Amino acid sequence: MTLGQLGEDELLKQLLSRAPLRRGVVMGAGDDCAIVAFPRPGMWQLLKTDCVVEGIHFTSKSPAVSVGWKAMARPVSDFAAMAGVPQFALVTLIVPAGKTLDWVKKLYRGLEKAAHHFHVAIVGGETSNTTGPAVISICVTGFVEKDRWVGRSGGKAADELFVTGRLGGSLRGRHLEFIPRIEEARWLTKHFSIHAMMDLSDGLGTDLPRLARASGVGFELDESALPLQRGCSITQAISDGEDYELLFAISGRDGKRLEKSWRKRFPKLPLTRIGRLSQPSTPDPQLLRGYVHFK
Amino acid sequence: MTLGQLGEDELLKQLLSRAPLRRGVVMGAGDDCAIVAFPRPGMWQLLKTDCVVEGIHFTSKSPAVSVGWKAMARPVSDFAAMAGVPQFALVTLIVPAGKTLDWVKKLYRGLEKAAHHFHVAIVGGETSNTTGPAVISICVTGFVEKDRWVGRSGGKAADELFVTGRLGGSLRGRHLEFIPRIEEARWLTKHFSIHAMMDLSDGLGTDLPRLARASGVGFELDESALPLQRGCSITQAISDGEDYELLFAISGRDGKRLEKSWRKRFPKLPLTRIGRLSQPSTPDPQLLRGYVHFK
Repeated sequence: MTLGQLGEDELLKQLLSRAPLRRGVVMGAGDDCAIVAFPRPGMWQLLKTDCVVEGIHFTSKSPAVSVGWKAMARPVSDFAAMAGVPQFALVTLIVPAGKTLDWVKKLYRGLEKAAHHFHVAIVGGETSNTTGPAVISICVTGFVEKDRWVGRSGGKAADELFVTGRLGGSLRGRHLEFIPRIEEARWLTKHFSIHAMMDLSDGLGTDLPRLARASGVGFELDESALPLQRGCSITQAISDGEDYELLFAISGRDGKRLEKSWRKRFPKLPLTRIGRLSQPSTPDPQLLRGYVHFK
Repeated sequence: MTLGQLGEDELLKQLLSRAPLRRGVVMGAGDDCAIVAFPRPGMWQLLKTDCVVEGIHFTSKSPAVSVGWKAMARPVSDFAAMAGVPQFALVTLIVPAGKTLDWVKKLYRGLEKAAHHFHVAIVGGETSNTTGPAVISICVTGFVEKDRWVGRSGGKAADELFVTGRLGGSLRGRHLEFIPRIEEARWLTKHFSIHAMMDLSDGLGTDLPRLARASGVGFELDESALPLQRGCSITQAISDGEDYELLFAISGRDGKRLEKSWRKRFPKLPLTRIGRLSQPSTPDPQLLRGYVHFK
C-alpha cells in the first residue's frame, strides 16, 4: 500500500498510536501540540532540530530501519555534545506518495529503536506529501544541569584535545548505525571539568577549527596519534565526516587522570589524545587553511 | 549567488546572526543545541512541528516572504488552538543548491516577520541540500497555563459551536498571509470556559468531525449560518481548508455572553455560531459521511 492510498490521518494513527506515554508527557500525539512537563529548576532546556534527506544523507538502498535510527541519532548526538539529556522528540515525515507503507513503518521502527535506546519519548508527528525525495526532520528537546553544560567556546590554550572512538570511513555503513555518546558525555561531565566539547559531524578537519575558533584559540593536531577506523587513512579520519564521536578539551592535569578512569569505565571504546589547543597565532583564516585542502 | 556556492556555515551565519536574543534564550544559534530557560511552575510546555513543501503548500511562484510567513504561522496556529503562547522556534531549511541566496533571504525575512509578530525567538537553524523541492520545517516550543489549556476532547452535547473569521477560498492567497488567532484564543480562555478548541487547517468538513470524535459526541451544522469568504460557496467554506480560524465549543449560556463581549473586543473579526454538539448518534463513521463527498 502506498502513502497516497492511505491518507495522513490513518498514517499518523498507525505510526503514533503505539508510542508509550513517558513520565513528563502530559499529552502525546493526537491534538494540536504535544504537552510536556517542565523539569525542576537548576536546568537549562536544550532544543535541537536536524534532518536527513534521501540522496544526501541516505540512499534509496539504505535499510529503512537504519535511516530511522540515523534521523533520530543525529540530533541526539548534539545533546551528547552539550552533555545534555534528550527527552522528547517530534517527527516530521515528508514522503512521496509512491513510498510503501512498509518502508515508512520500518523507518518509524528505526526512529523508535533509537528513541527507546536513549529514553526519548516521541510525542508528536507531522507528515506531508512531496514530489521529491523523502525527508525526515526530527526536533528533540531535553535538558542539561546549568553547572554541567559544555559548549564549544570554553577551550583554553594548553588544554589537551581528546576524541572518543575511531575516525574515518563512516560512509561504509557506520553513518547509519552510530551510537551518540550520551552516556560518555554524562560521565565525563560528572567526573571532570570539560572546557569545551562538540560532536564530530562534519569531520575533524572542519569541526576542530570550529571549536578552536569558538574558544578564541589556535590548535596543534598530532596527526600520527589519530585513532583510525580499520582501513582508513589519516586524510579520511580528518575529512570524511559523520563520525559522531566526541571531541573535547580538558586541562593537561585532568587529562592524565581521565585516561586512567576512562579505560576502567569504557574498556571497549578508545579515548585518544590527538593534540592541544594553543595561543591564537596568525590571523584566524590561517587556522583553517591546513584542512581546507582535505575537503 | 546559489546555495551551492555559499556553503552551510556561511548560509547559517548570514541567516541567524541577526536574530536578537530574547528573554529566556540562554544560547541561540551557533552551538550544538539552543538553550532556553524554563518558565515558572503551573505551566505545561507545548511542542509543535510543521512543514511546508514546495509544490504542495506553496509554488515556485509564491513570494518567498509569504512562504516564510506561512511556514512559521502554521505551527503558531496550533498554539492558538490550545490557547498557548509560542516562545521559541527552530528552523530547518532544506533547499536545492540552485535556489538563489536572495530567495532564501526573503524566505527568512518572512519567517522573522511572523516570529516577531508573535513574540517568538528563532533560536536555532539547520540547513540541508536536496535534489528535490524546497522544504521548510519549523519546530516551535512554548507554554500554556495548566488551568487554561484547551484540547479537542472536552466538548459536551448541547455545546454551541463557534468559528472566528470567514471560511473558504484560502488558496486564492489567504493561505500565505493568514494571522494565527493567538490573541483571540488567549482572550477567550481568559474570560470564558472553552470546552474544546482547534484551528481549522484541513477544512471544517474534516476538522469538525475530528473535534466531535475526540469529544465523543455528534454535531449539527447550520450550513446557512457559515461565515463565507467573499465569492465562496458553502461547499468551499466546508472543504477548501487552510482557513486557520478557530473552531470551539462553549456552553449555550456562555455563548450569549461571549457574542456580546467579542464584538467589543474584536470589532473587525467576525465570530459566528455555526451549530452545536449533540448526543452521539448512529455509529461514528456515519458522522463523517456527510462531508466526505466534499473532498
